[in-house]
Amino acid sequence: MSIANLRQALTGVSGVPVTAYDADGEVDPRVTSAVYARVAAAGIHNIVAAGNTGEFYALTPSEIRKVFEAAISGVSGRAPVTAAIGRSLREAISMAKDAASMGATAVMAHQPVDPFAAPAAQIDYFRNLADASSLPLVAYVRADGFSVPDMVRLAGHANIAGIKFATPDLMLLSRAIAASDPAGALFVCGLAESWAPSFTSAGARGFTSGLVNVAPHLSLAVHRALASGDYETARAIVNQIEPFERMRTKFRNGANVTVVKEAVTHSGLDVGPVRVPGLPRLDAEDRKELFALLKGWEETGHVREAAVGASG
Amino acid sequence: MSIANLRQALTGVSGVPVTAYDADGEVDPRVTSAVYARVAAAGIHNIVAAGNTGEFYALTPSEIRKVFEAAISGVSGRAPVTAAIGRSLREAISMAKDAASMGATAVMAHQPVDPFAAPAAQIDYFRNLADASSLPLVAYVRADGFSVPDMVRLAGHANIAGIKFATPDLMLLSRAIAASDPAGALFVCGLAESWAPSFTSAGARGFTSGLVNVAPHLSLAVHRALASGDYETARAIVNQIEPFERMRTKFRNGANVTVVKEAVTHSGLDVGPVRVPGLPRLDAEDRKELFALLKGWEETGHVREAAVGASG
Repeated sequence: MSIANLRQALTGVSGVPVTAYDADGEVDPRVTSAVYARVAAAGIHNIVAAGNTGEFYALTPSEIRKVFEAAISGVSGRAPVTAAIGRSLREAISMAKDAASMGATAVMAHQPVDPFAAPAAQIDYFRNLADASSLPLVAYVRADGFSVPDMVRLAGHANIAGIKFATPDLMLLSRAIAASDPAGALFVCGLAESWAPSFTSAGARGFTSGLVNVAPHLSLAVHRALASGDYETARAIVNQIEPFERMRTKFRNGANVTVVKEAVTHSGLDVGPVRVPGLPRLDAEDRKELFALLKGWEETGHVREAAVGASG
Repeated sequence: MSIANLRQALTGVSGVPVTAYDADGEVDPRVTSAVYARVAAAGIHNIVAAGNTGEFYALTPSEIRKVFEAAISGVSGRAPVTAAIGRSLREAISMAKDAASMGATAVMAHQPVDPFAAPAAQIDYFRNLADASSLPLVAYVRADGFSVPDMVRLAGHANIAGIKFATPDLMLLSRAIAASDPAGALFVCGLAESWAPSFTSAGARGFTSGLVNVAPHLSLAVHRALASGDYETARAIVNQIEPFERMRTKFRNGANVTVVKEAVTHSGLDVGPVRVPGLPRLDAEDRKELFALLKGWEETGHVREAAVGASG
């Protein structure tokens, strides 16, 4: 896929499916592939393999390759597959090569995790990776402390299609967008539906989502509303999502993936627990609250459809 | 080494040597080994292989093994070698096995880097690793949000010799020490010389150090002063170190390892630059300031000796 086409896909919803484990705790390629297939069938525009919602850091490199395979086979050409890569620069380059040879569309570079990282040298990490990758790259920016010139330098690399901007620093975001070449990398909201209205108002396009595992129609409805400039409808759907997203922040965000996986399992695809240091399972009380919430979404389906109709 | 003996070593200085790269940017086992030998010869009590000052996250797993080898050969039995392990739980378990088979004394589990980690599940990560490791384990705690019961549960594992406590939450530290079994894991200051007086006053013993690469006698002098309860002398030496430690915090701590490596290279062992996303090199002005500082330490050597004499 050309960088221009990927950039176009990034203006949509970038969904991040979960990774399924079998009863022995091993990656289950069949169920994982089914999760990806379901997200692709819902019409999600760009699908990220082994992102944070896919427990990238809890997987070994060989398990990450298994997830890439499951993603590519599950999506089956219905959307771009953006394979998430990371760790040391050398390992990330090696993962990018694997992703290309396996047939991924693009790569997404996770934020480097080194505790002693200089902002400008983090930009170099991403740029070196973009130099080495035959596939176009999305840079996942989570750290604080970047300057506008740092962002401009990142967005100006010819092989960087997008920046997944995942800090709430809206001043940096809006200034970086204003200062960057409009034909360069797309700035994408990396903080999901809840932040998408604010990011869109600051000039970002598209957003990432873990909710696509559970209710892709809600993610798409937020997207359609924002794409047409209908912030009121977008806010109404975000408000409907809010208790789910808030539950994900429990235990200092340790429940982030747990809430999604429990909801996916509840829907009939058993994806197993989350690996430590994520929270493995919800307790009975949180699970009850989650299931009640999911039931509420089903019962108010007509409200969603009306909202979507009004925005489209 | 028995867990009791390791615990004793942890009451001293845990030094973290840098990793040397050759002109092609590859790990240089010979120079790396020489750095470890120098730190061991200085009498540092516990030597950590591939810690953060050793650029753990910028190394591939096979490079980490090379650093373990260089450490074990350089230290040559003069001190325990605590091999740093990490990443996903499965990779960390595999690194612990490697370290044991190579002859390391103990392992230190780096803080898991997963962005969505629940405090209690992080404790499980460390405990699972301690269960699986044949060598005693040191747990490196950097995250916020742990409770006193979390810390008590960590310190109570029979194969955890120490906790490298590396957040400035002194209330949690002092309460956790008070609540934990005194015969359990030792709480060690994980924030180096500057924080060692405060941590010691809160009940911690020993501290970790990157300064040992450059001026191990200063680290040892701080340690001797604190071990004898002479806080005034400890503070005087910490004040002497302070401009060096402050320079390491530049670029949002991106210069942390850079300052140490430039000082080691200046001393005659060329260890090369830091890998991105660390700051690769200091600029001319910072380098000049660093060399002036090192010269000052040499010239005031008698002041140091007097301080050490007064404390011992």
